[in-house]
Amino acid sequence: MIQIDFNKMGGLIPAIIQDYQNGEVLMVAFMDEKTLNLTLETGKTWFFSRSRNKYWMKGEESGNTQEVMEVLTDCDADTVVIKVKQNGPAACHTGNRSCFYVKWENGQWVEHSKPLFDPAQVYKK
Amino acid sequence: MIQIDFNKMGGLIPAIIQDYQNGEVLMVAFMDEKTLNLTLETGKTWFFSRSRNKYWMKGEESGNTQEVMEVLTDCDADTVVIKVKQNGPAACHTGNRSCFYVKWENGQWVEHSKPLFDPAQVYKK
Repeated sequence: MIQIDFNKMGGLIPAIIQDYQNGEVLMVAFMDEKTLNLTLETGKTWFFSRSRNKYWMKGEESGNTQEVMEVLTDCDADTVVIKVKQNGPAACHTGNRSCFYVKWENGQWVEHSKPLFDPAQVYKK
Repeated sequence: MIQIDFNKMGGLIPAIIQDYQNGEVLMVAFMDEKTLNLTLETGKTWFFSRSRNKYWMKGEESGNTQEVMEVLTDCDADTVVIKVKQNGPAACHTGNRSCFYVKWENGQWVEHSKPLFDPAQVYKK
């Protein structure tokens, strides 16, 4: 029986969140065993925040939750790909559809930020 | 100027390798600063193996190298998405096109392995 290996990164695995329709990688975050189980049980994405040291559900503040459509793991079961239906306009806290709006171009990182909402309005805390 | 943050995971960042044509996530591996730079400079994907504690170029043994088409980082610059042209039939050492051939179905992980090559023939060491 396949079991997820949480030991390689001190209890965490990377979770790649992908738009189930067009395959765009929306964000990468981390899950521990509890938040992976919450994700599988509730059908919404839950993560462990390394910087804030807490559990969080994507969209709990912004309303931009993610509906789990498909969950995959890899050949050594130490990471997951989660295909989601993104609710609201965008996944990134900056207002961009995807967190991956920074591109390597001619030897440097170039931002291609096109926010779909105003973070100051959405995150009021 | 944006710089990649290697400090959150002891010098490593997750690298999500995505088929540049259909968006399929082929594999997830780790890069340190040296292998990210090698990847950007050579146009082939290089990784740091946590289990073998060494640098490796994808395809160095199998011939199934990856041509870098686009490199993206995210809003906090602590992970990269690399869109590649996969050479050879498959990215995974099991012979599967993608490493993510294990799916969560009815409360368990189910393998959907369809190898496109025989690992015993390709990895002879």
